[in-house]
Amino acid sequence: MNTTHIESLKQIAGTLSQSEVKEYGYIPRPAQSSPNVNRIKEMMSLLKSIFFPDFFDDAEISAYTQESHIDVYLERLYSLLNELLCQSERTLTFIGRLPEIKRLLATDVKAMHDSDPAATSYSEVILCYPAIQAMVHYRVAHELLRMDVPVLPRIITELAHSATGIDIHPGARIGEYFSIDHGTGVVIGETCVIGNHVRLYQGVTLGAKGFTFDHEGLPLNEPRHPIIEDHVIIYSNSTILGRITIGHHAVIGGNIWQVYAVPPYSRIIQKKATSSFTDGLGI
Amino acid sequence: MNTTHIESLKQIAGTLSQSEVKEYGYIPRPAQSSPNVNRIKEMMSLLKSIFFPDFFDDAEISAYTQESHIDVYLERLYSLLNELLCQSERTLTFIGRLPEIKRLLATDVKAMHDSDPAATSYSEVILCYPAIQAMVHYRVAHELLRMDVPVLPRIITELAHSATGIDIHPGARIGEYFSIDHGTGVVIGETCVIGNHVRLYQGVTLGAKGFTFDHEGLPLNEPRHPIIEDHVIIYSNSTILGRITIGHHAVIGGNIWQVYAVPPYSRIIQKKATSSFTDGLGI
Amino acid sequence: MNTTHIESLKQIAGTLSQSEVKEYGYIPRPAQSSPNVNRIKEMMSLLKSIFFPDFFDDAEISAYTQESHIDVYLERLYSLLNELLCQSERTLTFIGRLPEIKRLLATDVKAMHDSDPAATSYSEVILCYPAIQAMVHYRVAHELLRMDVPVLPRIITELAHSATGIDIHPGARIGEYFSIDHGTGVVIGETCVIGNHVRLYQGVTLGAKGFTFDHEGLPLNEPRHPIIEDHVIIYSNSTILGRITIGHHAVIGGNIWQVYAVPPYSRIIQKKATSSFTDGLGI
Amino acid sequence: MNTTHIESLKQIAGTLSQSEVKEYGYIPRPAQSSPNVNRIKEMMSLLKSIFFPDFFDDAEISAYTQESHIDVYLERLYSLLNELLCQSERTLTFIGRLPEIKRLLATDVKAMHDSDPAATSYSEVILCYPAIQAMVHYRVAHELLRMDVPVLPRIITELAHSATGIDIHPGARIGEYFSIDHGTGVVIGETCVIGNHVRLYQGVTLGAKGFTFDHEGLPLNEPRHPIIEDHVIIYSNSTILGRITIGHHAVIGGNIWQVYAVPPYSRIIQKKATSSFTDGLGI
Amino acid sequence: MNTTHIESLKQIAGTLSQSEVKEYGYIPRPAQSSPNVNRIKEMMSLLKSIFFPDFFDDAEISAYTQESHIDVYLERLYSLLNELLCQSERTLTFIGRLPEIKRLLATDVKAMHDSDPAATSYSEVILCYPAIQAMVHYRVAHELLRMDVPVLPRIITELAHSATGIDIHPGARIGEYFSIDHGTGVVIGETCVIGNHVRLYQGVTLGAKGFTFDHEGLPLNEPRHPIIEDHVIIYSNSTILGRITIGHHAVIGGNIWQVYAVPPYSRIIQKKATSSFTDGLGI
Amino acid sequence: MNTTHIESLKQIAGTLSQSEVKEYGYIPRPAQSSPNVNRIKEMMSLLKSIFFPDFFDDAEISAYTQESHIDVYLERLYSLLNELLCQSERTLTFIGRLPEIKRLLATDVKAMHDSDPAATSYSEVILCYPAIQAMVHYRVAHELLRMDVPVLPRIITELAHSATGIDIHPGARIGEYFSIDHGTGVVIGETCVIGNHVRLYQGVTLGAKGFTFDHEGLPLNEPRHPIIEDHVIIYSNSTILGRITIGHHAVIGGNIWQVYAVPPYSRIIQKKATSSFTDGLGI
Repeated sequence: MNTTHIESLKQIAGTLSQSEVKEYGYIPRPAQSSPNVNRIKEMMSLLKSIFFPDFFDDAEISAYTQESHIDVYLERLYSLLNELLCQSERTLTFIGRLPEIKRLLATDVKAMHDSDPAATSYSEVILCYPAIQAMVHYRVAHELLRMDVPVLPRIITELAHSATGIDIHPGARIGEYFSIDHGTGVVIGETCVIGNHVRLYQGVTLGAKGFTFDHEGLPLNEPRHPIIEDHVIIYSNSTILGRITIGHHAVIGGNIWQVYAVPPYSRIIQKKATSSFTDGLGI
Repeated sequence: MNTTHIESLKQIAGTLSQSEVKEYGYIPRPAQSSPNVNRIKEMMSLLKSIFFPDFFDDAEISAYTQESHIDVYLERLYSLLNELLCQSERTLTFIGRLPEIKRLLATDVKAMHDSDPAATSYSEVILCYPAIQAMVHYRVAHELLRMDVPVLPRIITELAHSATGIDIHPGARIGEYFSIDHGTGVVIGETCVIGNHVRLYQGVTLGAKGFTFDHEGLPLNEPRHPIIEDHVIIYSNSTILGRITIGHHAVIGGNIWQVYAVPPYSRIIQKKATSSFTDGLGI
Repeated sequence: MNTTHIESLKQIAGTLSQSEVKEYGYIPRPAQSSPNVNRIKEMMSLLKSIFFPDFFDDAEISAYTQESHIDVYLERLYSLLNELLCQSERTLTFIGRLPEIKRLLATDVKAMHDSDPAATSYSEVILCYPAIQAMVHYRVAHELLRMDVPVLPRIITELAHSATGIDIHPGARIGEYFSIDHGTGVVIGETCVIGNHVRLYQGVTLGAKGFTFDHEGLPLNEPRHPIIEDHVIIYSNSTILGRITIGHHAVIGGNIWQVYAVPPYSRIIQKKATSSFTDGLGI
Repeated sequence: MNTTHIESLKQIAGTLSQSEVKEYGYIPRPAQSSPNVNRIKEMMSLLKSIFFPDFFDDAEISAYTQESHIDVYLERLYSLLNELLCQSERTLTFIGRLPEIKRLLATDVKAMHDSDPAATSYSEVILCYPAIQAMVHYRVAHELLRMDVPVLPRIITELAHSATGIDIHPGARIGEYFSIDHGTGVVIGETCVIGNHVRLYQGVTLGAKGFTFDHEGLPLNEPRHPIIEDHVIIYSNSTILGRITIGHHAVIGGNIWQVYAVPPYSRIIQKKATSSFTDGLGI
Repeated sequence: MNTTHIESLKQIAGTLSQSEVKEYGYIPRPAQSSPNVNRIKEMMSLLKSIFFPDFFDDAEISAYTQESHIDVYLERLYSLLNELLCQSERTLTFIGRLPEIKRLLATDVKAMHDSDPAATSYSEVILCYPAIQAMVHYRVAHELLRMDVPVLPRIITELAHSATGIDIHPGARIGEYFSIDHGTGVVIGETCVIGNHVRLYQGVTLGAKGFTFDHEGLPLNEPRHPIIEDHVIIYSNSTILGRITIGHHAVIGGNIWQVYAVPPYSRIIQKKATSSFTDGLGI
Repeated sequence: MNTTHIESLKQIAGTLSQSEVKEYGYIPRPAQSSPNVNRIKEMMSLLKSIFFPDFFDDAEISAYTQESHIDVYLERLYSLLNELLCQSERTLTFIGRLPEIKRLLATDVKAMHDSDPAATSYSEVILCYPAIQAMVHYRVAHELLRMDVPVLPRIITELAHSATGIDIHPGARIGEYFSIDHGTGVVIGETCVIGNHVRLYQGVTLGAKGFTFDHEGLPLNEPRHPIIEDHVIIYSNSTILGRITIGHHAVIGGNIWQVYAVPPYSRIIQKKATSSFTDGLGI
């Protein structure tokens, strides 16, 4: 490297380090050190092996050693969580909720299997359906959020978002037998409340219609996402916005923009599109 | 770890292992051991190197050693597939179809290049376009499914789904010169039949409108997805549902919800949206 | 392996190597050797550590060593870029633009934080929001494209596309304080021009309505994507197509298909969907 | 690469492939495919974790999960050995001998601890003493050789030889409470018979004095290495050659060249070296 | 796995877990968890980069960033050592001694370079001479032992022993300008005291002649290894045993067995070997 | 980290960076950047696969693809060597010598097999005998040294030294059919000349007796190591020093210290050791 380049690099490094100077892009350092993402991935991998033994393990696990494997996984999980949560009581509380999380995930597997003619077995659903991965991450993150663990829950759901295109905020509340088909583009907002036996298709947004702002102009974190009652189905690419209730057994068709409440047993469908032979549109 | 925690962990492990008890989330163990996902990734990586030599290899491959590289890759592929398919005749049958798969992929590359003004070269399309990755995975998975290989084809297409947001069921039938632009959110269902020279944009769903159920209440796996004839273009975020036919040379505009057949040469566009200055909507 | 299989494999390898024969799928070899994707990932990882020290590093970085870390990262980046760009002057030019890129990214972080009630801190936005990752990749790729670096910019944005579902072409021009929420399915085309303080939601397409073709039937690379002026908000799953201008302070609702210009301060919303109790539709 | 270089490389590759031509270095291909060394390393790592739980594992192992860990390790070992030995009965036979191997190794640990004033604990011996590693490999390899497993035993002892400089042929027979201090350069030949409570120092050779040859001029594999009776100590760099017996409780000093039998309770020491002030030797 | 095998494995696992039963090889669990060897390797790698910048780093380090690299390495070392030593004051004390260790190592490099005609540069000595690696490990381990750190020092010197065949106990005291040529088989005992400008060749043992035993029959840890004064040279494969003094400027020839003190300026050489034409010896 | 510690670390880093100040251990920076050791390891691994196909490869290599594998390996080797040697002509010259190196190695394999009754096959020798690894490294390094490549040859032989305990200087000249048994502690000096059919055992040193010094007091690099003629055998732990000739067909017994020439057909053996019952020696 010649001397001019060395001088330039030194100067640029100096500029980039002056992060307290606003015009060079001031970002405050994180209040506490960021959780190590590789540890979080290891934690989720352990949890998948605990919930679904012999599905995601590198080596084969016989039925007769299944309990030993779970012993081993739980001990490693306990140690990892202690490091991430910095408090062994919280770790134990969380681990104590694993059987219930496992039970809920089993209802999701059943729901996805029973509603998809392309599903050939429970095994195929567990191994291949991105929504299962999203639900494992969400249900774990939701429990951690309920215990007031910061940042970690959001990183967990974003890992699933990146892998599946399904973006569920850990704050959302979701019942049993929940299913999502295909899933890419699904967004479920922070204050959603979803009942049992609900089914979503790809591209469905359960979002906020607008925000209330505080006196500093920052949006308030209020209930602002939909309530979806039991046995609702929402087809692909529909958008449900605001603190509205979609009544039980309602069916929302695809490509719907819905900002008002819907009574139970409703059927909402899009108007028929215009069909024409217009060459001039350029499409 | 103190004694109380040890006792708790032991008890939780016991509960999690009682998977036969329904209330703790009963998931039957997989009938046969699950295919190793790392092996499948290695297989797909080999196939990409075979189809597109010198594009995805870590080291440079000269023209003069290309044939030797393919020898080496094929031998490794033969060995990997024998392990995954457990039957060498099936392995050989599949490998025998690689030249045809390569030919089809070359038509896809050409189609994507010729229809996108942003594409600067075939190389850029192969290296950067997510739809190429999706089509490599789909065309390989489709051949395996035709040979009645279970589970594996679905894992292969889901790997592409996760990486690209494009979800093509391995059962779909897709012709030559197929192209997808951008691709995130595209869903192509199990019983779709797609002709030649078809072009899709991001967010397009080719899905089922509804299912027929058997006497146990489970949905029947019948032809339920669209037939798309030659030279059709479907723009972004449109949804085509049911066993309907989109006639050749038809153009479907964006954000369309289509559940009826469309004759050849049609142009379908969305009605103009309402434009208004309504502050009360909160958006 | 028996003799028949060996003979078959030899023959198939021969066929696959005859890439110059058109019927076996002719793909020309890349004009120059493809950039090594692992190097590009290392480059992006270095850049993230330079822009946001102590957020993405494996080990903790104290405030007192921050400048030393940046020295070390910059030197490694210089070496990597020399290898990728093959010209040290271009490398230095690019590195000289890093403070400005960092400043722009800081405005994006601020914009995403201030417009999302679910955001609890700048740190959470940097660590968890996929749109930050997409913007780091885009802003870096855009600078490289401005310096006429081939292929590399597109690979960089596709890496973000795969991880986030947000597809921004490196050729697009995007102002300060840009924000995207959720992001899956967002597409921003090559010739887009986007002002300051613009906000997009998931599934928004800023695309081309149609192409002009040259005498060989290939589409011309002309300005064909929208111009979005300052302070515009576009809600989820809307599609804006063609070289049209969306005037400043306009708000486009969700699920809109827009192919005409929109004046400043407009509010565009979708017509209310038909609500009905039709059982016969099968949905 | 220019054309001349390509031509040269092609020609050299051709020459290197003509392995059947004697003048280019004829080495017959291995009769069966060579055992995968990485699998063997994994096997030895599992065995170390089984023999000495919580010493060599990456993560901490509590007393309360020790049995579960051993279950998990044994299952993995069973699977690995099946692959390496190609016969599940042999695998089970070998695993059935593990408790006895563990018992023998415990006597070795005790012997090394009790005879070295620098040893501070059993733990230090297990973790740090190269002779323990050598004995784990030897005792495992010896059992496999007794079961007529080919090649594998020799690879196992050579792995220890490379790591420790201690070269024990798997065919040697070694009793309980065996110890080696420092160990570099120790050689124990194929037909050695070593009693209990024997102690060796670095550089000791227990070798053959000469060979009997068959009619083709190849050396015969006969008993040709020493018999070392109980409670013998052999100090550093001594060489004991041929089928001679070193009687029980004998002590062989350092730097001894011994080719004749030694009665019990002997003390063998080197003659005093010449001490002189000779400058002419050049040392 | 058939039922018989499962039963057998269960039973063997049970036996192997009964470690408290003496006849199955009782080894007490380590009093505290064993230091993680991978962390220790990382620590030694950091130290080598600190002592010899730009020699062992993966990437090139310019002179102008050398100080920044050392900042970064020291911070990482501080964090690693805190974890290994569990006490930050000890960590700081150790780091404070690094400049002195570096100075001593520089004298060793100079000594090895100046006394070996095959050495072409200081760089070759640092990069290739195993004795440098051994001395880095020894000098670091010796400082830690002086601070009463348990187990860790011995693991550090054993890592060097395994890589180089040079076995230096961390308790030995070694002066400046120390050199070892080739080095395989060198053993330097725990209570050795070695002056300045001492040179050893391969296979040299500085060991104990015998031990004093306590009333339980265990050997006492007393001064029992030689004192080597300044400017002594000891040639290959010689053995010096017991608490004897080798006077300054003495030269010990090769293959010597020495158990008595040697005055300054002595020359000790082996008697001439017998030369004969005896065929009957079988060698 | 508290402020005092930060201050201390800063100061220590400063001291460690003042490498030009003599009292802090002055080591000049390497004249040119050090060769990357991982690349050298990859090079040696390629060479082993080229010399002995199907012995050291991770995957199985059929006879029918052997030539293709060699093509692929040679191309990668060409690329790696260009990077290490910085000159493509030298690279080609070296690769052109590979067939001769392979031929020499095949004679070594034959020699080691034919002289060891414990050897069961050529395959076992290639896979397990450390001397084969040492000879591959030496013969490659020797060719590079003959081409005046600096540093690299020495690193190559030191890699083998570390793995096998056999230290052969790349400058030594060694004929055909060379064999070493066990090998730990063997040292072969820079100016040795060794004929054909020579056999060494563990611990043999072929070294220098003394050096001539130049006017600066540095030792001169002159011929100073032994000449070993054809068909010589040297048994374990013997030391042959100085520019003396060991005549053809001579046999040197074990533990010999030899500084004078030996005529052809000699037999040199050690005098019988003193046998005594002296308890007072403390051994």
